[in-house]
Amino acid sequence: MESQQVDLSGLAARVSHLGSETAFVAAAEAAAAAANGQKVYPFHLGDLNMATPENITEAAFRAVRDRKTGYCPNAGIPELRESIALDVGRARGLSYGVDNVSVQPGGKPVIGKFLLTTMNPGDEVLFPNPGFPIYESFIGFLGGVGVPYAYEERADGFGFDVEAIARAAGTRTRLLILNDLHNPTGGECSPEQLESLADLVLEHDLLVLCDEAYFDVRYEGSSRSLASLPGMQERCVVLYTFSKKFAMTGWRLGAAIGPKGIIDVITTLNVNCESCTNHFVQWAGVEALTGDQEAPREILRVLRERRDVAARCLNAIDGVRCHIPDVTFYLYPDVGEAMARRGFTDYEAFRRAVLKNTGVSMCSRTHFGHEAPGERGRYLRFAYSGIEVEQIEEGLDRLKAFLER
Amino acid sequence: MESQQVDLSGLAARVSHLGSETAFVAAAEAAAAAANGQKVYPFHLGDLNMATPENITEAAFRAVRDRKTGYCPNAGIPELRESIALDVGRARGLSYGVDNVSVQPGGKPVIGKFLLTTMNPGDEVLFPNPGFPIYESFIGFLGGVGVPYAYEERADGFGFDVEAIARAAGTRTRLLILNDLHNPTGGECSPEQLESLADLVLEHDLLVLCDEAYFDVRYEGSSRSLASLPGMQERCVVLYTFSKKFAMTGWRLGAAIGPKGIIDVITTLNVNCESCTNHFVQWAGVEALTGDQEAPREILRVLRERRDVAARCLNAIDGVRCHIPDVTFYLYPDVGEAMARRGFTDYEAFRRAVLKNTGVSMCSRTHFGHEAPGERGRYLRFAYSGIEVEQIEEGLDRLKAFLER
Repeated sequence: MESQQVDLSGLAARVSHLGSETAFVAAAEAAAAAANGQKVYPFHLGDLNMATPENITEAAFRAVRDRKTGYCPNAGIPELRESIALDVGRARGLSYGVDNVSVQPGGKPVIGKFLLTTMNPGDEVLFPNPGFPIYESFIGFLGGVGVPYAYEERADGFGFDVEAIARAAGTRTRLLILNDLHNPTGGECSPEQLESLADLVLEHDLLVLCDEAYFDVRYEGSSRSLASLPGMQERCVVLYTFSKKFAMTGWRLGAAIGPKGIIDVITTLNVNCESCTNHFVQWAGVEALTGDQEAPREILRVLRERRDVAARCLNAIDGVRCHIPDVTFYLYPDVGEAMARRGFTDYEAFRRAVLKNTGVSMCSRTHFGHEAPGERGRYLRFAYSGIEVEQIEEGLDRLKAFLER
Repeated sequence: MESQQVDLSGLAARVSHLGSETAFVAAAEAAAAAANGQKVYPFHLGDLNMATPENITEAAFRAVRDRKTGYCPNAGIPELRESIALDVGRARGLSYGVDNVSVQPGGKPVIGKFLLTTMNPGDEVLFPNPGFPIYESFIGFLGGVGVPYAYEERADGFGFDVEAIARAAGTRTRLLILNDLHNPTGGECSPEQLESLADLVLEHDLLVLCDEAYFDVRYEGSSRSLASLPGMQERCVVLYTFSKKFAMTGWRLGAAIGPKGIIDVITTLNVNCESCTNHFVQWAGVEALTGDQEAPREILRVLRERRDVAARCLNAIDGVRCHIPDVTFYLYPDVGEAMARRGFTDYEAFRRAVLKNTGVSMCSRTHFGHEAPGERGRYLRFAYSGIEVEQIEEGLDRLKAFLER
């Protein structure tokens, strides 16, 4: 089928508002470079180069052999919903039941289904910038009005200003997307900030998507959820994913956890969109949550070592400054000085030059939304989830040589 | 979390237009009856009670062991896209390439993504009635205007009148949903009807969703696709699923096959909705299409035997008439006389009385859309995909005793 004779300008108008994850472009370019024989250091994608723990894969195999290969309930098997309710509730000091859980083919489906359920065209939605690009894409696709709030660099890491959000919120503001424990910066709210945010949510009568994909990818301290604050549980839908904690990105397993009324609609969307999530994969999820926890601890140990090595290597480069967040598997250094010294102003040109000259492949600020007016610093995002310590060192040494040349 | 304090009347307006598959209600009632100790004869769901062929499950296990557990391309792994392009093309006498294929977590996602890609609010969409209820649900959910076209009973089975569709199509009609090889009736178009339909599509400049979920579930003759007719390939998106042919319903694997421009948008929707379909399940799909084909042949042999037994038993009931379609695993008998004799006018009351008195669980006309004005006959849908021959005989004997009492 070579030709394309239908006038595709005649597709639905909403398609023109559909965004994407441009990180996949960086991934494709890295793959092309590797196919050309270049040695590539993959820092671009938030994928893990670790095996899914064996107790989890064995649970999946067992479920297949037990004929868990037919349809299952649209909201997920009760055993998994209960395990998720318990685990997510316990970690947040909340009580959830099976009625509060809708299993999804990944964490990402929660974003679209939350917006389909709660947002009318013209509604304003507060979302983080920089941030995961699918928020802005899906808001616009469904006719909403995305209102970005900025993450800014401070002495101790990245954060946003609740006052600035309060100023941005207006009478049409209906939803807040919160990605505390933040991709790409690793920033997180203080308890006081979460309290201010809860006040704002109540004042403006908002519903909240708490994208907590990295809640359990934590090396120090303990994660907090906005949902745990008084009055918030009935306003927050938590996005949960098995992808990162259990090295299960390609399995596509996650869940929406929230008030029954919203969860019921999301489950009706499951009926309409895909019937159910893969049946036997859900049994693997039960094992992940209820089985031995040594493997996810080991995953965290490996990630932490990589974080420390990568941060050390980045901070050793002249003109590069890098915070060391306690959560996520990303580093978000300011490379402004190094870029300027090498004469680069354009992010994409810089990224491609780095890939070409060093093999280091990463994302930049531009993969996470539009630069805010007055934004200082020039940022790259390094994911250390898919690359071994030795390769981190080798790649970032090459980057250092290139930037300090 | 007991209470529900948020005013859910404040959810998105589109939610009020969201339908469901009420067959799941019948399934839930059957499950409740079984849990109460009643013997249930499951004819309600289009699921298979057969194991997925072992070569396919082994391919999945192998892929997990080979670490196909991370993210994969949004459109699917090239090996699967190529296998689908070849298989779907060969069966339809068409040439497709990998660019024409977007892998999905099931066949069902193609419905929503096709409509998201091609339908503007206010657009009219022709859809079959009776028919798979998700068409009408998703059209309304996205603000489209569903225009049903009727399947009617004839001497040789069920079909629709292309002339009637032509009369229903107007200046706002943009899309046709065609489920030739039809759920629930098993009806299919003649070559002449497909030609008339192609003329209509060209005349009204329509795009077409060809839901061909049952294309390969065939006992006699050969299936035809509207996409095969001149000028149709660039207007048709074919819904393909692994669910039925390979007893893989719970695996959630399918694809959209069509013009590159539309497929590209559908793949961008993959990026937004779920990133990708389960990675190792896709390798199982490659084995399903390229490996030994004895197992799917055996599945068909079993289904055919069940069809013949079920049709014989149904036609042995006084006041029940049943065609024997060559495709799908459904029977759609007219039970009007038997219902009337037993004093039932309401479908749901009748269905529940049958379940309570006989354990036979099936769907009725009402699970597949609203009865058309002047519709004659009262219909039930019996799926014979999830029940053994002996149970078919036993259940339908009990139904006979109840209806002839």
